[in-house]
Amino acid sequence: MKAPGIFLLAATLLALSTFSCETREAKNDDQVFIDSLFQVALSEGQSYTYLTYLCKNIGPRLTASPNAYKAIFYGDSLFKSLGLDVNLQPVMVPHWVRGDKEVLQVMTDSGAIDLAVTALGSSVGTPTGGIMAPVIEVHDFEELNALGRKNIEGKIVFYNRRMRASLLQTFRAYGGAVNQRSQGASQAASYGAVGSIVRSMTLKKDQYPHTGNMRYDTTQPFIPNAAISTLDADRLQNLLAKQKDVQLFFRQNCEQRPDTLAWNVVGEWKGSENPDSYLIVGGHLDSWDLAEGAHDDGAGVAQAIEAIRLLKAMGYQPKNSIRVVWFMNEENGVMGGKAYADSARAKKEKHLAAIESDRGGFTPRGFTFETTPEQIAHFRVYSPLLASYGFSEWQEGGSGSDIEPLKGQGALLIGYFPDSQRYFDYHHAATDVLENVNERELELGAAGIAALLYLIDQHGL
Amino acid sequence: MKAPGIFLLAATLLALSTFSCETREAKNDDQVFIDSLFQVALSEGQSYTYLTYLCKNIGPRLTASPNAYKAIFYGDSLFKSLGLDVNLQPVMVPHWVRGDKEVLQVMTDSGAIDLAVTALGSSVGTPTGGIMAPVIEVHDFEELNALGRKNIEGKIVFYNRRMRASLLQTFRAYGGAVNQRSQGASQAASYGAVGSIVRSMTLKKDQYPHTGNMRYDTTQPFIPNAAISTLDADRLQNLLAKQKDVQLFFRQNCEQRPDTLAWNVVGEWKGSENPDSYLIVGGHLDSWDLAEGAHDDGAGVAQAIEAIRLLKAMGYQPKNSIRVVWFMNEENGVMGGKAYADSARAKKEKHLAAIESDRGGFTPRGFTFETTPEQIAHFRVYSPLLASYGFSEWQEGGSGSDIEPLKGQGALLIGYFPDSQRYFDYHHAATDVLENVNERELELGAAGIAALLYLIDQHGL
Repeated sequence: MKAPGIFLLAATLLALSTFSCETREAKNDDQVFIDSLFQVALSEGQSYTYLTYLCKNIGPRLTASPNAYKAIFYGDSLFKSLGLDVNLQPVMVPHWVRGDKEVLQVMTDSGAIDLAVTALGSSVGTPTGGIMAPVIEVHDFEELNALGRKNIEGKIVFYNRRMRASLLQTFRAYGGAVNQRSQGASQAASYGAVGSIVRSMTLKKDQYPHTGNMRYDTTQPFIPNAAISTLDADRLQNLLAKQKDVQLFFRQNCEQRPDTLAWNVVGEWKGSENPDSYLIVGGHLDSWDLAEGAHDDGAGVAQAIEAIRLLKAMGYQPKNSIRVVWFMNEENGVMGGKAYADSARAKKEKHLAAIESDRGGFTPRGFTFETTPEQIAHFRVYSPLLASYGFSEWQEGGSGSDIEPLKGQGALLIGYFPDSQRYFDYHHAATDVLENVNERELELGAAGIAALLYLIDQHGL
Repeated sequence: MKAPGIFLLAATLLALSTFSCETREAKNDDQVFIDSLFQVALSEGQSYTYLTYLCKNIGPRLTASPNAYKAIFYGDSLFKSLGLDVNLQPVMVPHWVRGDKEVLQVMTDSGAIDLAVTALGSSVGTPTGGIMAPVIEVHDFEELNALGRKNIEGKIVFYNRRMRASLLQTFRAYGGAVNQRSQGASQAASYGAVGSIVRSMTLKKDQYPHTGNMRYDTTQPFIPNAAISTLDADRLQNLLAKQKDVQLFFRQNCEQRPDTLAWNVVGEWKGSENPDSYLIVGGHLDSWDLAEGAHDDGAGVAQAIEAIRLLKAMGYQPKNSIRVVWFMNEENGVMGGKAYADSARAKKEKHLAAIESDRGGFTPRGFTFETTPEQIAHFRVYSPLLASYGFSEWQEGGSGSDIEPLKGQGALLIGYFPDSQRYFDYHHAATDVLENVNERELELGAAGIAALLYLIDQHGL
């Protein structure tokens, strides 16, 4: 093996350290506790039961939809049944409604062809009769800028930049493409476009359009915005390569209604030593409307409350107070996360750490921390306790949209980090249903989150 | 953090070593090569294309079935198209046929109820008209022995021991339950049972029965043997708890025909320095007949040839000869693996190492090695090169049924080790179809196998 010296040294230390762990005669208390946690989770875990209720008894949970309120009631009663004190925290939320099934047709020499389309969240509708306009394909804002008003005005802009398959972490590939969805409409409108459509944010080639939120720049006209399936994006691309002046017919009647009242569901388990010091664990209760929000983020809210249930089932009594928060409105506003952070600031509550699960209910890889390399290195001391359960990656990275508003209040922000390969197959699409969640993968995540809560509660940061 | 000294030391070394790797200025050649391999695999990988052909253009590939021969032709032409020398290695194989759809009915007070049933591979059929007999539930051979002939004779034995959900590695849970399937019939026959049924080998609660092989003890009568779905096993268990003398009606007409001829598909890529020294990579081409054999083991054969294609696409020229082997008949005889090993022994071929992928096309966890702790510790020197791609577990463990017959010929035997949580949801059931394989997870496995072939070829063992 030809390896530079320092690399060989590092690798040898790694091998040695692993060997040392394996040959220890006695396990320490933390390892015993954590091993038990995982055994209980795998044999009697309830995350999947909670998720099943959210998916099948309730269903899609778009903010301000009737189902979102049913989910709040479910959280209230579930948290109480587990002995938590429940606070329904009021929050004003956007109220967007999709309206009728959208229509997007491409006019070809052989007639009109329907494309698989879905309106993007926060988008306006088209005029009642729809719009007919030529389509122009672009891949990024630079290309749009270069084309300028003379090529864009009066047209529907088709954003067709792919997520980069070569990136291992699919969230990075998403991050590199999603500005087309979130900002594309206003960018196009600034050059006089009358509509905007985008290739769905997924690496999979299929016929499911993926919705998701977009934001208007209030200095530009609000033009209707929608996503099409990746296969239909390819189809449209191929057509545009062969035919000039392709016309699209586009109709949707989604609309943004006045903001309305909803709630975060906050459950509290009082600490025995530092009751005014908080650890929080959460996910978001709202989902998009096309499916059951199983991975996004039914999985996260189920794991958050299951982490508490597991610790209680183990007879654990926390030193610090632990709160589970089912946040409202992550998808189209993050108003629940902001309301929670505002309340914490106003009440001068001390938050030690916050953990969010909002990357799907997939098999564990580790945790990401919004902190310094030094604190992460310190935290990796814990990693051998969970590595055999698949939590081998403890690294810098985002935490979760709902807890990020807490930044600046001193809490260590942590994201649960499951394997990301399958996430965007389902994200915001009609396929995000319970059947695409594996029960054991889900329960392993809950156990890992419970273990991290335990470690922080026991040993501090 | 209250950790014993040695544990803390180990953890600190681990943290330090990871830190050192991250801060190196330049990557070594191996890391550069491996990073490129993974990028090519994620963006242009072909495993999924090959698997799609096997699943959708061919389909189920039960040994000696017409589809198994079609798959051999496919391998022959695919290997040649990639510039390999192809040898179709003859092997005599068992020829079992399922016959008509099996029937298993339980007679209840309110009438006959159909149970979801599938004959086990190698089982005999029932008499033409089926059998009607009382059923008795047992959980292991100890319980069977304690019941003895007076309680067993003339009955159908129902083996109902669950796989242990609390075990993290599902293959261990399988290993702890599968003797009911493989040996249960003969054990029951030794006490005069007339038939044997078994709870399906899966952790999932659903209505899919899982087939799989069984073996008869030739000193006992051959009685018909089948598996029922886990939900129907629960149903039967509940009925037996309430009702005495439950009768089953059981009919199947599967049969073992005379052995027949088939082939392993062996592709060879000549080494530049040590052409008489072999590295092999493989999986098994045959599958069960209930589905497409997508995870078991279409994934493995696709990854094996893709590993070669990836190395060729990188412009790599191996020092040693590399063989890809699509083994025939793993499921009900392992005759292909035995034939390959017999041939290698007869020709005195020197095999450095053999890698098999036969644990499904799931996201990577690492590799298992059939060797000493010392050699594994030595091999872990490689692990940092692949750890960021999910290959963090390099540990002792089985390799693969098809390469195990090579044991004793000096080859290091290695198994690809993907995440195991979902495997038994699909294993040997009607759900083992392409749609349950994620393209990216599959390609990552192929890249990891290619990387390990490269490392062994470059640096030896």
